[in-house]
Amino acid sequence: MTLADYSNSDLELDLRWWAAANYLTVAQIYLQDNVLLREPLTVEHIKPRLLGHWGTSPGLSMIYTLLNRHIRDTGTQWLYVTGPGHGGPALVAATYLEGTYSEVYPHISGDSAGVKALCRQFSTPGGIPSHVSVQTPGSIHEGGELGYALIHAAGAAFDNPDLVVACVVGDGEAETGPLSGSWKIPAFLNPARDGAVLPILHLNGAKIASPTVLGRTSDRDIDSYLSGQGWAPIFVEGDDPNEVFPALAAALTTAHGKIAAIQSAARAGEPVGEKWPAIVLRTPKGWTGPHEVDGKLIEGTHWSHQVPLSGVRENPEHLGLLEAWLRKYRPEDLFDDHGAFTKELAELAPDGDLRMGSTPYANGGRNLVPLKIPALESYALEIDTPGARSYETTKVLGELMRDIYKQNSDDKHGGTFRLFSPDETASNRLQAVFEVTDRCWQLPRTENDDGLSPEGRVMEVLSEHLCQGWLEGYLLTGRHGLFATYEAFAMVSVSMLVQHAKWLQHAVALPWREPVASLNVLLTSTCWRNDHNGFSHQGPGMIDAVIPLSPEVVRVWLPPDSNTLLSVADHCFRSRDHVNVLVVDKQSHPQYLTLDQANEHCAAGASIWKWAGTESPTAVGSEEEPDIVLAAAGDVPTEETLAAAQLLREWVPWLRVRVVNVVDLMGLLPQNDHPHGMPEQKFVDLFTAETDVVFAFHGYPRAVHQQLHGRTNPERFHIRGFSEQGTTTTAFDMVVLNRMSRYHLVLEALRRSRRVPEKSGDLAEFCQSQLRRHHDYVREHFEDMPEIREWKWSQG
Amino acid sequence: MTLADYSNSDLELDLRWWAAANYLTVAQIYLQDNVLLREPLTVEHIKPRLLGHWGTSPGLSMIYTLLNRHIRDTGTQWLYVTGPGHGGPALVAATYLEGTYSEVYPHISGDSAGVKALCRQFSTPGGIPSHVSVQTPGSIHEGGELGYALIHAAGAAFDNPDLVVACVVGDGEAETGPLSGSWKIPAFLNPARDGAVLPILHLNGAKIASPTVLGRTSDRDIDSYLSGQGWAPIFVEGDDPNEVFPALAAALTTAHGKIAAIQSAARAGEPVGEKWPAIVLRTPKGWTGPHEVDGKLIEGTHWSHQVPLSGVRENPEHLGLLEAWLRKYRPEDLFDDHGAFTKELAELAPDGDLRMGSTPYANGGRNLVPLKIPALESYALEIDTPGARSYETTKVLGELMRDIYKQNSDDKHGGTFRLFSPDETASNRLQAVFEVTDRCWQLPRTENDDGLSPEGRVMEVLSEHLCQGWLEGYLLTGRHGLFATYEAFAMVSVSMLVQHAKWLQHAVALPWREPVASLNVLLTSTCWRNDHNGFSHQGPGMIDAVIPLSPEVVRVWLPPDSNTLLSVADHCFRSRDHVNVLVVDKQSHPQYLTLDQANEHCAAGASIWKWAGTESPTAVGSEEEPDIVLAAAGDVPTEETLAAAQLLREWVPWLRVRVVNVVDLMGLLPQNDHPHGMPEQKFVDLFTAETDVVFAFHGYPRAVHQQLHGRTNPERFHIRGFSEQGTTTTAFDMVVLNRMSRYHLVLEALRRSRRVPEKSGDLAEFCQSQLRRHHDYVREHFEDMPEIREWKWSQG
Repeated sequence: MTLADYSNSDLELDLRWWAAANYLTVAQIYLQDNVLLREPLTVEHIKPRLLGHWGTSPGLSMIYTLLNRHIRDTGTQWLYVTGPGHGGPALVAATYLEGTYSEVYPHISGDSAGVKALCRQFSTPGGIPSHVSVQTPGSIHEGGELGYALIHAAGAAFDNPDLVVACVVGDGEAETGPLSGSWKIPAFLNPARDGAVLPILHLNGAKIASPTVLGRTSDRDIDSYLSGQGWAPIFVEGDDPNEVFPALAAALTTAHGKIAAIQSAARAGEPVGEKWPAIVLRTPKGWTGPHEVDGKLIEGTHWSHQVPLSGVRENPEHLGLLEAWLRKYRPEDLFDDHGAFTKELAELAPDGDLRMGSTPYANGGRNLVPLKIPALESYALEIDTPGARSYETTKVLGELMRDIYKQNSDDKHGGTFRLFSPDETASNRLQAVFEVTDRCWQLPRTENDDGLSPEGRVMEVLSEHLCQGWLEGYLLTGRHGLFATYEAFAMVSVSMLVQHAKWLQHAVALPWREPVASLNVLLTSTCWRNDHNGFSHQGPGMIDAVIPLSPEVVRVWLPPDSNTLLSVADHCFRSRDHVNVLVVDKQSHPQYLTLDQANEHCAAGASIWKWAGTESPTAVGSEEEPDIVLAAAGDVPTEETLAAAQLLREWVPWLRVRVVNVVDLMGLLPQNDHPHGMPEQKFVDLFTAETDVVFAFHGYPRAVHQQLHGRTNPERFHIRGFSEQGTTTTAFDMVVLNRMSRYHLVLEALRRSRRVPEKSGDLAEFCQSQLRRHHDYVREHFEDMPEIREWKWSQG
Repeated sequence: MTLADYSNSDLELDLRWWAAANYLTVAQIYLQDNVLLREPLTVEHIKPRLLGHWGTSPGLSMIYTLLNRHIRDTGTQWLYVTGPGHGGPALVAATYLEGTYSEVYPHISGDSAGVKALCRQFSTPGGIPSHVSVQTPGSIHEGGELGYALIHAAGAAFDNPDLVVACVVGDGEAETGPLSGSWKIPAFLNPARDGAVLPILHLNGAKIASPTVLGRTSDRDIDSYLSGQGWAPIFVEGDDPNEVFPALAAALTTAHGKIAAIQSAARAGEPVGEKWPAIVLRTPKGWTGPHEVDGKLIEGTHWSHQVPLSGVRENPEHLGLLEAWLRKYRPEDLFDDHGAFTKELAELAPDGDLRMGSTPYANGGRNLVPLKIPALESYALEIDTPGARSYETTKVLGELMRDIYKQNSDDKHGGTFRLFSPDETASNRLQAVFEVTDRCWQLPRTENDDGLSPEGRVMEVLSEHLCQGWLEGYLLTGRHGLFATYEAFAMVSVSMLVQHAKWLQHAVALPWREPVASLNVLLTSTCWRNDHNGFSHQGPGMIDAVIPLSPEVVRVWLPPDSNTLLSVADHCFRSRDHVNVLVVDKQSHPQYLTLDQANEHCAAGASIWKWAGTESPTAVGSEEEPDIVLAAAGDVPTEETLAAAQLLREWVPWLRVRVVNVVDLMGLLPQNDHPHGMPEQKFVDLFTAETDVVFAFHGYPRAVHQQLHGRTNPERFHIRGFSEQGTTTTAFDMVVLNRMSRYHLVLEALRRSRRVPEKSGDLAEFCQSQLRRHHDYVREHFEDMPEIREWKWSQG
C-alpha cells in the first residue's frame, strides 16, 4: 500500500474506530456508571479507585486499528503481542470492539449493559486485572514484567509458516537485558519454514518517571542498531493522527510486502538477500489525552503514564477536564442508542478467527495436537542388578527426543516439538537429537561446522532468557518442547518461569482457554557434578523458587536414574498446563530400576526400595518399625544413600534399615497443600510415624523441611543436602564438603537410630577414618578415592 | 601509538611474555610435576583429572600483555574485567608473571617450587577454582554465569575519573540478555566525572559447541550495532601474532587517545561530539594450541573450548602432542634455572599498584572510605501512640539518602554513594534524593524534563540487571549504595545476587581481600500493595531464594515501619561483605515505634510488643504462658496482626495474648545455622515453649517453616502469608484472598488458643460475618471496607 491507497474515508473510519478504543480505555479507567456519557458526568459516575495505565494505550490502539484494516485487506493471519502489557484497557477495548470479547465473556454484551459491565469489571475486585493478562483474548503475553515481548513473538513464529506476529516493543521495555538480547531473531528464524515477526518499536519517549534511552536516540543510531542485528527499520513519526495513520498503514503494507518477498524467495529455494522489516514508531505518550493539567504538560510526557487526571473525585475542574476528554471522542457517534458499536465501524474488524482476539494462535490449546511419543521400552536400560551398571543418565532422554522429533515433524510446518538449550545439548548428553535434526542457524556457515543448518530445529543460543521465552511462546501457541539447562543457570530466567506459572494458574480458571502443553525444564549439570566448573555453576536454588508457586501448576521431579527419567519425561510431555522441573545430572551414575519398576516408582512418587534395606520381609507394613530410615531424593543423594545402606548392612547387619526413594518432590507436601501431596497414611507407611529419617536431598536441606511441616513428627527428619559449599574439585569432595557423603549419612544414621547396634562404634570409626583419609589423600593426590570411584552396589 | 611506534623488539618481548602466559596456562591445566619441562614429559607428570578452559585463554593473555605495555608507557590506571571468566588459568598466569600472585600468596613463589605449586593448586581440591574467581588477584568479576562483564565494568567506572576499565566481552557472553542490554553505557557514563570503559569484544567465533552470533556477523553489521549504541569500534583481526600484536597495540593507543580526548573536552566544559571507542578483536579460539588432533581441526573451533587434548594419560600420541605444544613456547627461554621468570620479561609488567593484579580498584576495600551517615534523629517520625499515625514508610529512607548524597560527594570524584533503581525512585517514595542530585542522563534533554542531568548520580534505567550489576561493580571497587526495586522484579536479577553472595562468601576467607560495603537491596512496592498493578507484580519469592545462601553473607530485614527502616538501613550501610535484603512497602502504613524503640527492636531482631498484648505485666518472663502468641514479620502482616490483637482485646479481654514482632528474619534460624540465629532460650522467651503461635508473614508461609526446623516445638507455628493469590484489586482484598486478614488471624487464634475463652463464639461469628460482608460489599462497591481503611490502633 502506498500513501495514496489509504483513502480519506479509510482514514476517517479508522480514526473513529481508534476514538472508540480510546474512549473505552478512558471509560474503563474512570467510569462505573453513565459509561456512554448519555448524561452530564458527575462524581457518582467515577470509580472509587482509579487504576490503569493510559500512557501507552492510544499507541497500542492505533496499531490494532490499522492491523485490523490490513488483515481485512489481505486475509492474512496475525498475532498481536503487546510488550507494554500495562496497556490492558486498550486491548480489552479493541477485542470488545471487534466482537471477540462478548463471545468469550457473554455477560460483557454488545450493548449499554455490556459497556457498563466492561467498565465496572476493569481493575476491580472480582473483575479483570489491569494488564494484557491471560484473561485478555488474543494475548499470549502478560507484559507486566517487561522484557519478553520479542522472545515470546519469536517462539510463536517458529514452525508457524502462515503466521505474522506483530510485536509492539515499548521503549521502556527496550532498556531491559532480555529485550535487548532478543533482537537476534534473524539469526534463528527460517523464512522458509517459520512465520514472521514484525517488531513495532513504539517510542513514546518516556517510562514511569523519565525519558527512555531509545526515545532520546537519533533515528540514525536506531537504524544502525537494528540494521546491525538483521532488521531494516521503517520509521513513522508524528503527533497528527491525520498524518500518522496513513504513514503507519503504508509502513505495515510495505513491511508485510517485504516479509512476503523474503518468505517467497526462501520457500522457492532462492537466496534471501534482504533484512527483515521492522517499524519504528514515534508518537506521543498519552496521545489524545489531557494536554496540560494544572499548568503542567501531560501529553507526550511521563506524567501521562498511569491516570493523568487523578483528582476527578475531589476537584470539579479535573472532572470537567475528564468529561471534555471523553466527549472529544464523540461517543454518541460511536455507539447507538442501545450502546451497540456503530455498524459501519464494527465492520472494520476482520471476521472470525482472523480477528486478533480470536486467533487460535493466541489460544494455543485450540491448535494443540498431542505429541506422538514412542514406547519407552526402546530406550530403557536393561537392569539386572540395581546399581551394578553406570550410565550417563540423561542420554536416554536424548534418544527419546530424537524419535519425538522424527515422529512429530513435517516438511511444510517444521513440526510440533523443539528442544531449547543454551549451547549445551551435547554437553548435557542429549546429542542423539542431532541424528535427526541440526542446531538452527540462519547465519553463514563454514566447512568445519557440524550439526548446524537453517533447517535445524534444536534451538541453541547462549541465553537462558531466549531459550525459556522462546519455549513459552512455542507452547502458548499450541506446541511442545523442553528447555534443558545447567541447573545453576536456570536461575538466570527464573523470573520468567514464575510469570509463566502465574499465567497458567489463571489460565486454568478460564473455560475458553484450551489447555496447553506443560513447560518442561530439565536442570542438568547439577550442583553435585559441576565439580569441573566450580562454585558459580553450583546452585540448586531453582527448587526453592518453584516450590512456593501455585500447587495447581508446579511439579518438581528428581529421577534417580535413566529409566525413571524416561518415565517422568513421558508423563511431563503428556501433561497440560503445568510447569515441570526435572532435576537430573548428565554424568555417569549407577542405574537402579527397570522400566517397569521405574514406572511404578514414578506413579507412586516415592517408594520403599526393599532390596536396599535390611528390614525383615514381613516387617514392612507391619507394626514393627525399622530402627532407622534412609531416604533420598535426587541421583547423587540416592547414590550416597545406597552406599550408606550397604555400609550399614556390611558392618551392622542386625540394624533394621529402611531405604526410601522420592522422585516426586511435591508428594512430601500435605495432601491439602498440593494435588500430588501424598495421603498421611501413605506418608507414615513410607517413613513410619516415629523412626528417625536421615534424608539425603539434592538441593538445600531446608527446602524439604518446609515441605514436611504438617506431617507426622517432622522433627525426626534429618536432611542433608547442598549447603552452599563448592569449588572446582572432585565429585566425591563435593559430597564431603556438603556433609552428604555416605560416611556422613552412616554417622548420622548411627546417631539417630532407635538402638545403638553392636559394632556401631567400629563402623563410626571406619567412617571417620575414611573422611580423614579423604581429607589427606585428595589434597595430596588431587583425586577421588579409588574405592569410591569404583563403588558398585552389592545386594549382599 | 601508530603501528610504527611498536618496534620489532617490543613485539619480540611481548610475544615471549605471551608465550610465558600461555605456557603457564597449559601447564596449570595439565601438569602436576616437571612443570617447567626440564625433562621429557611422562604420564606421571600429568594431573589425574584435566580441568580448565583453554579456548579463550590465549586471547585474554594477549590483551593482558599489551595492556601491560600500554600501562608502562602511559603510567595510567587500568582495571581488567574478564567477561570469559572461564579463562581463569590465563589470568592466574598473568598475575603470577607480573609478580602480584606471589605477593598475595607467598607460597606460590617466584621459582620452580612456586611454578609447581601454581600448577598443582589449579582446579584441585584445596586449591583454586578454574575461573577468574575471587581468589584471582585483580578480579572483581567471576564470569562463570555469563552476561555481566560490561555491567560490572560500568559500575567500576562510575565516580572513578582516573580509571580505565578494559572489559573483555566474549562472543558467547555477548548472546545473553544482560550483556546485550549493557552496551548502553554511553547514555549513563559522564566523561567529566566518571572513568572510562573500553569494551574489547573478543570474537573467537565459538562457544561450547557451536558458532556465535556475533562471530558470524559481518564487521559492517557489528559496526552498525555498536555505533547505534554510542560506540566507535576499532577492528583488529588476524591469526598471525606478528600482525595482530602491533595492530592491537595501536588500537589500544588509539582508543585510549580517544578516551582522553573525550574526557579532556568534558572536563574543560567543552562539548563532546565523539562516540566512545571500543575494540572488536577477531582471533582464533584456542590460538597457538594444537591445530589438529586425530585429523580433526581444533584451533579456531569450539573443540578447543576446554581441554583440547583429553587423552594424554592414555594415548602416547596425545602426550607427544602436548609436549610439543608446551615446548613450542620455549619454557627454557622464559624461566631461568631456578624457575624464576626471565628478568627482561618480568620488567615488562608495570610497577606496584599499576599492575592490573594489584590495582586497589580490584580490591575495593583498600579504597573504601566509611560512609558519613547523618544522625537518624533528623529523619525519625514522632510517635506518640503506636499505630495512630500513618505514613509512607520508605519516605524517611529517601531523606536519609538525600543527606548521605550530600555528605559523601565532591566535585571532582562525584562521590562514594549511589542509588540504583529501575525508573522507580519517585514511585518508591525515595524522591527526596532529587533535592540534591538528579537522575544521571547523558543523552539529549528537553525543556520538560525534570530531575535529569549529566551530573545526576541517581541511576535509573529500566533494567534490574543493570541496576544490580552496576551497584555490584560500584561496591567491589570500594564504594557504597543501594538498589531499590519492585519486590517481584528483584527476581529478574536474582541470579546475579546469588553469584555476588557466592563471591562474598569466598572473599571473606581471603585475608588480602579487604572488606567491601554490603550489597543492599530494598524490595518495595511489595506483593501486598501491588493491588494496583496486579498478579505479575505480586511475588515475594526473593526471600526464598536468599534464605539458603551462605549464612555468613545473607540477611533479610522486614522493618514494620519508618523508624525501624531507618535503624535497619543505618546498620546495613555500615555493614561489610553482606547481602542485605530489606523488604518494606512504600504505601502509607501505620507507624508504631519511636526511633529509640526501633533501634532496640532491630538490635534484638525480634521483640514482644507488650503494649499490644493482653498478658498481665508480670506474666512476661514468668512461668505463666500466654494462651496464644500472635507474631508478625513485615509491615502489612504487622498491621493485620495488631488489628487482630485489638479485636481479641475488645471482644475477649480475658484471653492472654502475646504479640511478637520479627524484624531480622534470620534470627528465626537456629543459632548454629546463622550468626543472627537467636539462642534457643531467647526464642522460647519470645514464643514460649508450648503455646501456639499464629504468625503473619510477609512472604510465602513455608519460608518461615523451613527456618523453624530445629526450634522448640515448631509444629505449633501456624503461618499465614502470601499464598500466590493476587490480581488488580484492593489492598484489603489482597489480605483476604491470601487468608492473612485480621479476621483470618483472629479465627486462627481462637482455634489454636490454649483455652476457649468466653464469647469466642461471638467474636468468631463477627469475623466470619465481616469476611462475608467484604465478599459482598467490595464486589458491589469496588472499594475497601471503610472501617478497615480508617483503622487506627487503640491501646484500649
